[in-house]
Amino acid sequence: MRIVDIIEKKKQGKEHTKEEIDFLISSLMDGTAADYQISAWLMAVYFKGMSDDETAYLTDALVRSGEVIDLEQLASSVVDKHSTGGVGDKVTITLIPLLAACGIPVAKLSGRGLGHTGGTIDKLESIPGFNTNMSIPDMIAQVKKIGVAIGAQTQKLTPADGKLYALRDVTATVDSRPLIASSVVSKKIASGADNIILDVKYGSGAFMKTPEDAVKLSEIMVKIGKKLNKNITAVITSMDEPLGRAVGNSLEIIEAIEFLKGNIKEGDIAELTYDFAALALVQMKKSDNIDEARKIINDAIESGRALEKFRELIITQGGDASVLDDYSKFPQVKYIVELKSGESGFVHRIDALKIAYGCKLLGAGREKKTDSIDYGVGVFLNKKSGEYVNKGDVICTIYSNDEDKTNAALEYCKDAFVLSESKYVEYNLIYKIIR
Amino acid sequence: MRIVDIIEKKKQGKEHTKEEIDFLISSLMDGTAADYQISAWLMAVYFKGMSDDETAYLTDALVRSGEVIDLEQLASSVVDKHSTGGVGDKVTITLIPLLAACGIPVAKLSGRGLGHTGGTIDKLESIPGFNTNMSIPDMIAQVKKIGVAIGAQTQKLTPADGKLYALRDVTATVDSRPLIASSVVSKKIASGADNIILDVKYGSGAFMKTPEDAVKLSEIMVKIGKKLNKNITAVITSMDEPLGRAVGNSLEIIEAIEFLKGNIKEGDIAELTYDFAALALVQMKKSDNIDEARKIINDAIESGRALEKFRELIITQGGDASVLDDYSKFPQVKYIVELKSGESGFVHRIDALKIAYGCKLLGAGREKKTDSIDYGVGVFLNKKSGEYVNKGDVICTIYSNDEDKTNAALEYCKDAFVLSESKYVEYNLIYKIIR
Repeated sequence: MRIVDIIEKKKQGKEHTKEEIDFLISSLMDGTAADYQISAWLMAVYFKGMSDDETAYLTDALVRSGEVIDLEQLASSVVDKHSTGGVGDKVTITLIPLLAACGIPVAKLSGRGLGHTGGTIDKLESIPGFNTNMSIPDMIAQVKKIGVAIGAQTQKLTPADGKLYALRDVTATVDSRPLIASSVVSKKIASGADNIILDVKYGSGAFMKTPEDAVKLSEIMVKIGKKLNKNITAVITSMDEPLGRAVGNSLEIIEAIEFLKGNIKEGDIAELTYDFAALALVQMKKSDNIDEARKIINDAIESGRALEKFRELIITQGGDASVLDDYSKFPQVKYIVELKSGESGFVHRIDALKIAYGCKLLGAGREKKTDSIDYGVGVFLNKKSGEYVNKGDVICTIYSNDEDKTNAALEYCKDAFVLSESKYVEYNLIYKIIR
Repeated sequence: MRIVDIIEKKKQGKEHTKEEIDFLISSLMDGTAADYQISAWLMAVYFKGMSDDETAYLTDALVRSGEVIDLEQLASSVVDKHSTGGVGDKVTITLIPLLAACGIPVAKLSGRGLGHTGGTIDKLESIPGFNTNMSIPDMIAQVKKIGVAIGAQTQKLTPADGKLYALRDVTATVDSRPLIASSVVSKKIASGADNIILDVKYGSGAFMKTPEDAVKLSEIMVKIGKKLNKNITAVITSMDEPLGRAVGNSLEIIEAIEFLKGNIKEGDIAELTYDFAALALVQMKKSDNIDEARKIINDAIESGRALEKFRELIITQGGDASVLDDYSKFPQVKYIVELKSGESGFVHRIDALKIAYGCKLLGAGREKKTDSIDYGVGVFLNKKSGEYVNKGDVICTIYSNDEDKTNAALEYCKDAFVLSESKYVEYNLIYKIIR
């Protein structure tokens, strides 16, 4: 078998065999396939696509390129929830203690990621002392004891995906559905859980720009899951404006705490968390239907059990749980600057990408793996879409540690808000559920 | 400007600017564009093509990536003839002394090439002592003195094309028309002549498999030439069976000598040489029309001037001109084995590619640049298409220095001949001329 023949075959739009995909990925790993050959193949895949079988073969090959976490008997009982990434998305953080409080064990491995803010792990580390470095056996033991654990992905999972992604990033081959699908699903499979809920975002702040694209991607991922004996549910959700009001690290944790305290009952964060939790309860047979599931979830919040589960998680992983009652225990910033509206009208749209750029500029995220994160900085949206703004009202608040960056972030935020005199038309957050 | 954006643009099927093409090629040369980025771009070009303008920009950038030969005042008066490559193609060798004998100066630079036999330079070097290593000023001086010179391409012409071709070869991106066109034309432009005749082959033994593909490629090359102020004529010719009867190095030189002696008046070699020479005479205004040109050419052969010009060329470049009168002065082989036909019938077809494989196996060509060539080996076709064969007639002869290779080559040759009881239908060698 020769790599050039595999490229030629894909160029002609033909279907690869499992042996060809395995050969390609093992050649990528042992260096016998040159990067320039892999990138030509990636571009051919962009143009010619891959069948569901090929995508499943690729996913499987990516999984087998590295370690696979063995969650032992937990694997079939735990749920792993993953989001394809959105601005202000703290639903993983609201969901983890909530599910645990509802009796569903959660063993979550998460990456640090690059982006406009940190990943779930970084956000949690804004809680002083919170430690996410734990071994898999320790994680399993903690889940057995308190029903929940969240660890940083330090294992060498799917290294072939890492190599492929690095190439895709610099060769304009990121936006290929089978490549995205195999990348996302391989990481989830290597993480060990049998039940996976994927939040597939579409919109200005997401990879997939249209709901149709997100549906197609989701259908592929669910099919691959079936072929590889994993139970995947894909929920397609809008990411046209930031999720919730906080974008940053500690700012997002505070919003999640407010939700767990029962102080946020309406809006996108509450809606999505309830929906995902209800789906998980039904999927794990803790409830017969969605309505019953929502009652169980509501009770977990109103009774305070969800918040207490989060407290237990923080304490068990070495964090300072007093942050739950006193937000000043979070890292503080030097400047808190309010942006006031120059006009009146309904908020029609808040561009997620522009808010994201503002946050990145303030230092909330990383560009390179070695960059450090400024936990306290970010943007708080005092107004969300559909709310009426009078001239002079505060529409958002910048949390910053640098005066120049504050001003630049203010410009991004100003640009992000679109006001209109006509009443805002509400839309559904969830576009479709595929399983 | 970023390479990844240039790839993205081509991926979307958009047209590159001159600045973008220049940036891409200069980044390829200084190493700031990685090979894996260039190969992804090449694959995107394969799928999305390039406009004539883009192809001309690329050709120009490839030319400027290295040295450009300055033929001084000769440039506008000389003709450069180039073939895209065919089995048994010795028309460059018949044409050079013939044109010179007709008063058209020829300054030909040629490569050594990889393939089933050597290139034009290698074939000429089968003449003992023939030296093709000369400087450009020496070449110009020789053309001024005797009207003809042929040198090996030792200058660093179009190094960017060399890099691109090396990548294309291992990433299944060879068969892209704008990439082939820019590669061929850039080398011709860098070689310095203003008048270029391209023999564009199609058929089983050529890059382009159909005449339609060859026409499209030729149209692009002629257009690029116009844009870059070069006078290019493309002649589209069939390459379904070997040209002439000899395939090898010294065997082909002997056939060329026979033609120059006036001993070969019919068949493909005579036909093509006359056609190309007549085209050149008309293009260089040495003749008003093709019929008059053919008379001039015929006279150059019948008078012996063409052969004597070849003798002068050989002597001037240090070769042993006695080979012209005594073919035993060429390198001799150990085995000369005749292949006899097992059946009767008209020769319907001789597969060029199979004869080529046989010759390569015998050692007539190179796989790597460092391989040496066995000048004397090859295949002589005693029968050509259209000729009748009786059972037991010799259809071809193998010239070899190795018994095992002889037998393997015999098998290839057996497979190459297709006989049929029905009369062979003649076809035109020249499909179309584009200028």
